[in-house]
This record gives sequence, structure tokens and C-alpha cells, in this order.
Amino acid sequence: MTTPPGRFNSHCLTDFSSMDIVVQPSVSWMEMNEAIKSSGLFFPVDPGPPAKIGGMIATNCSGTNAVRYGTMKDWVINLTVVLPDGRIIKTRKRPRKSSAGYNLNGLFTGSEGTLGFVTETTLKLANIPQATGVGVATFPTMRAAANAATQIVRQGIPVGAVEILDDVQMDVINQMGATGRLWEKLPTLFFKFSGTKVGVQDNIEDVRKIVSNNEGSELEVEEDKAKQTVLWSARKEALWSMLCMRESGHEVWSTDVAVPLSRLPDLVEISKKDLESLGLFGSMLGHVGDGNFHETILFDGAKERDLVSKCVHDMVHRAIEMEGTCTGEHGIGLGKKEFMEKEVGEGSLSIMRGIKLSIDPFWLMNPGKVFDP
Amino acid sequence: MTTPPGRFNSHCLTDFSSMDIVVQPSVSWMEMNEAIKSSGLFFPVDPGPPAKIGGMIATNCSGTNAVRYGTMKDWVINLTVVLPDGRIIKTRKRPRKSSAGYNLNGLFTGSEGTLGFVTETTLKLANIPQATGVGVATFPTMRAAANAATQIVRQGIPVGAVEILDDVQMDVINQMGATGRLWEKLPTLFFKFSGTKVGVQDNIEDVRKIVSNNEGSELEVEEDKAKQTVLWSARKEALWSMLCMRESGHEVWSTDVAVPLSRLPDLVEISKKDLESLGLFGSMLGHVGDGNFHETILFDGAKERDLVSKCVHDMVHRAIEMEGTCTGEHGIGLGKKEFMEKEVGEGSLSIMRGIKLSIDPFWLMNPGKVFDP
Repeated sequence: MTTPPGRFNSHCLTDFSSMDIVVQPSVSWMEMNEAIKSSGLFFPVDPGPPAKIGGMIATNCSGTNAVRYGTMKDWVINLTVVLPDGRIIKTRKRPRKSSAGYNLNGLFTGSEGTLGFVTETTLKLANIPQATGVGVATFPTMRAAANAATQIVRQGIPVGAVEILDDVQMDVINQMGATGRLWEKLPTLFFKFSGTKVGVQDNIEDVRKIVSNNEGSELEVEEDKAKQTVLWSARKEALWSMLCMRESGHEVWSTDVAVPLSRLPDLVEISKKDLESLGLFGSMLGHVGDGNFHETILFDGAKERDLVSKCVHDMVHRAIEMEGTCTGEHGIGLGKKEFMEKEVGEGSLSIMRGIKLSIDPFWLMNPGKVFDP
Repeated sequence: MTTPPGRFNSHCLTDFSSMDIVVQPSVSWMEMNEAIKSSGLFFPVDPGPPAKIGGMIATNCSGTNAVRYGTMKDWVINLTVVLPDGRIIKTRKRPRKSSAGYNLNGLFTGSEGTLGFVTETTLKLANIPQATGVGVATFPTMRAAANAATQIVRQGIPVGAVEILDDVQMDVINQMGATGRLWEKLPTLFFKFSGTKVGVQDNIEDVRKIVSNNEGSELEVEEDKAKQTVLWSARKEALWSMLCMRESGHEVWSTDVAVPLSRLPDLVEISKKDLESLGLFGSMLGHVGDGNFHETILFDGAKERDLVSKCVHDMVHRAIEMEGTCTGEHGIGLGKKEFMEKEVGEGSLSIMRGIKLSIDPFWLMNPGKVFDP
């Protein structure tokens, strides 16, 4: 309990006994976790492997672990920010929770660099679970897979992650050969289990029953750490395999939306039919436990841009009409500014603009992102 | 999975299949949980029994369950807010997570009514755990109890709650006779366990070992639901018992602070000595898993006000100097405004003032709270 603070490089101070870490924005979350693993702690937010802490804060990112651990904003204890006028603020000291004044951590996290430069942060850490497992099952349809996933969440089985990949995505992974095995070309659920040894066993048995009740295959489970990585690799390689599929000169449109849990099976099904009827080549992948869903489309920019744009726009409008959001974790940037008003309304948007103006009156920070003046 | 939305009164719409509920601010969280329990869902943030949703949003409240479930801001999906200029905004639609624009949920939650009137909210719900348990153990000293609690958190045993009560508090509960049994007049830890049946058993055994390694008594555990309420009642009655102890004309000063986890044992020990050396009658109680700690002092306003004020001020300064916060869950109100600058710095405070001015330029909403113009 009295482990002294440690450093993993000159910029990163870990206080193991308070379960937190001070890091700077260019630190990779994966390198950070590797460096501190002997402490028994880890940072549980897991976006794409190349992500750095600064970008993770800017977009309020999440990832596969969000269903268990929440999103980036839930793990920020304080932020040191250089403001547009050159002043430097630190949003808080180092309490794990506080009700002192406005929640500036929650405001700067997800503001996409429009309010200031984050130069340092203190992040909460979590305990590395005693035991973990990875599970995979296939389903005849996306709806059956989505139903199984939502039932698992709805019944409160504390899975570490539950991810849905469609048949196209599984086929692409096979074609690119990134994972050292062949997968069935079927809608597939990937699970992470984590907790105590006994707890993980218990969760696996509960999931097995629900998978079987929803026309799923036998649940394949791996409890050996090294073999888990292999089994999870299909999920990990999903996006990269799609990128590798790209023909020379072709482009990729990758996007995400999120909807209330009960609407996810509908959204997935309609979006899939839409892709097919437009004759587009796209794969689907979702963090089902959060109602968050990604579509990646490969296309010939010269011929198909308008078609792809229509397909994505229709999906985003559909998600918003289902009471969802145009982005669950990627952020607005330039590409989704046009949806902001439909999603949050002119009133909320004017409050956001007012906040921006109060902090950055000359619109200096990342101008043109999220919304216009 | 297709349970239709339900209502528990004319204002409250529950969508069980999306695990959320639409409620208005005067709804009691306890009545809400009672009304929806047949759905298998509950709202896990548990402040004092009389709390209403509106006040819970205003203060970003938490409670004993925060160590497992987080605080109020983590459970807000959207807010409908009447702004100072009369416009009505809804911060979001209904996604469980979003990265679309600034996090207005996180800004209005905890703003203590200074930015607008919240008239409606959609809240996430959680699954009622399959099994629960309540445990109690006594310790020879506050430090031993605090050490046991921080070890339990540090080792990642997923307890539902871990609360520390000091010997004074236990004696007061005995004197007021609110719980139908006599407790040892010793520092005491109260635990909630929750999860699957097997998981709860496993956690109880892990906690039992740590308690025993820290000079604790045999861990008394209750798994029968009705008897759990009796065992937990001491924790529940802590504040009320203190209030009942008040002599006619005497007053109560109740306050909370939070510090990094590793500093909690020091803070508890120093604050206890301070109370004793000043000859004041006060009890202590803490949400140890969050580093959050409450002190309640009974005093004769005519004679002891300055002494109590000094004692509380010293504790708050001590907490801030330990890199903590002047309030973990109660909020700033009028009483803690003076600590804001020391805690967050003039820069952060000026950002908060700027946000306030951008939304409420005439300082109409709850003026004088949190900070001054």
C-alpha cells in the first residue's frame, strides 16, 4: 500500500497507491499500459492501437471496453490546458471525484482541440483483472447476433466487451490472412470476459446459454492469455484488413453512430440492406453494449463518391431519428458538422458556441471543427 | 427484449429494453427504484434517502454505490433545461454515449442551478444484481480500517460499496437506538457485495482475508435480503442518529472532502485528532473507495461556532493541500465559495465565470452560489 510513485519515462508519474498516472498528450495508451503493468494497474479505455492520450481526450474516445469501463471522460482526473490567450490552467487537483464548480474535465474532454491545448493530464487507473477470457460465436443473421448481444447486456452479465462483426467483415479478415486462421463467413460476436477466476467462469456459462438460445454456434472460449490474443486478433485486425483490401486509387469511408440499445438491431439490419441495395462494398462492426456501430465502405472515388455519401448520410439521419447520435466515439471534426443542429437542436448549439466564444473569442483553436461561428 | 415502454406515473416513461428512464426533477430516486423494480432495472446512484433527481443533478451527487457505479454525471443521457433567457434546450437525444459536440450533460450536472432550470432528464438504468450481500467488521483503529478498505479497492475486489464509520458514529447509533441492535464502539467497515451468486461468494472470501490481515474482527455477512437491510441500517441511520443527538438549541455542521486514495488514512487520522484536541463532538464517515470523507459536528452555536468553523476550515485546507477537493459530493453552495480559488486556481475559475456569463449574462440563476461575478 505504500508503493512510492514511479516513472515510466521522464514525463509520466504513476502513483500506484492512489491508482492514477500523470501523462502528457503524445503518450500511446498501449505503451503506457505495457510500461506500468507490473503495478497491477492499467488504463482501460481502448481505442485503436495507434491512439495517443491527447487525441483520446480530444474526441472523448472509447472502444471495446466501454461497456464495462465507460468512456475517456470518465477516467480524467485533471487536465492542464494552455488557453487561447496563453494562460495555463489545471482543471482540478487530484481527487477521484469532486463536486467543486463546473466540470471542466468533462467540457475539455471531447472538445476536439477547439478550447485549448491539453499539455498534461492525470488519469485514473483500474486494476488488471485476476482472470480474463475471450469468446467467439457465429450466428445465422445479424439480427440474431444483435439480439443475443443486447440480451446479455440487458440481463446484466458483466462482460468485459461484446463486439459484433458482420459476414463481410469476417470474409475480409480471411482474405487478408491477418489472423492465422480461417473464420466462418457469418455474423460473429466477440466477447471479452474479465473479473475473478470464479466470476469469469460464471459469466462464460451465462453467455453460452444466451448464445445458444439465439441460434448461435457453440461458444468458443480461450482462457490462456497468449491464445486469447490470437482469438481477439480478428476483432483487432478488422479495420486494418478493410484498409488492406483497398484497390489502388480507391478510398475508405469509415464512420460511427450510436442509438438507444433497443434500436441497434433495427439500425444494423436496415443499414446492411441499404449497403447491398446500393451495391456498395462495406463492412459493419459494433460495440453492441453501448448501441454504438461502425460502417467502413471501400469505394472508387471517381465513380461512387456520391453514392457512398448518400449511404452514410442516410445512416446518420436514421440514427438521429432513432434518438441516437451522429457519432458515438469518433467526434464531429469537419465531416459531421452538418448533423449537429438536427441532433442537439439550435438551442444547445448556441450554448456550445457561447462557451467557445467565452474561452476563445477570436476562434483561434482548431477553427472550423465541430461547428462554425 | 421487446418490453414496451412503461410509466410509473404520468411524468415518468421507462424504456426497459433500452435501459433508460425519462423523469422530472421532483421525483425521488427511492420511489423511482421502487416503482420500476419489476423491470429488473434500477438507478444506482444512492445519495441520502430524501434526495430528488433535480437536486442530484444540481450537485453531481454520489453516495455509497459510487465506488462501483460512479457519480450522477455518469448516468445522465440528456437534460431538458430552461435557460435564463427563457429558451428550452435538450442537451442530447437518447444515445448511451456520444462524441457530438461539447458535453453539456457534464456541464449542467453539478452546476448547482446556476445555468438553468432542469425540467426533465433521461437517465441510464443498471441491472439489479442477481445476488447481494452486506458485511460488517470492526477494527482497533481508524487507520487499520482505512488500510483494509484501501487494500480492497487497490486489489480490485469488485465490492458494491465500502464505508467507514468511526467509534463516535457507532456509539451515537447505539445511543439513538435506531437499528434494533447494539454495535461495538469501534471503527467499523460496512460492505455491500453485488454481482452473480458465485461472484458475491468469491468477493466475500477475498474481503474476509484482507479484513483479517488488518486486525479486523470476524466479517459478519448477511445474504438474506431482509436481514441485509437491518445490517445496513446502521450506515443508513448514521446522519439521522447524529441529528437526533442534537441538544435543544444546538447546531449541526456537516461537510465533506475528497483526496487521492492513498491520502485518506492520513486525512482521517489527522482530522480525528484535531476534533479531539479542540474538544468538539463530531463523527466521521467515509466512502473510502473514492477517497471521500464526511465529518458531522454537533455544537453550541453561541459558544463553539468559531471553533467549529476553524476545525472545518482546517480540514478543507488539509484536503486541498493533499491534492484533494473541498467537496466530493455536497457541492459548493455558499459555504465553500472561499475555497474555490485555492482548489482550482484563478484561471479555471475565470473559465467557469466566462461560461456562466455566456449562458446567464444577467446572473439570474441561483446568484451567489458556487462563485461570485
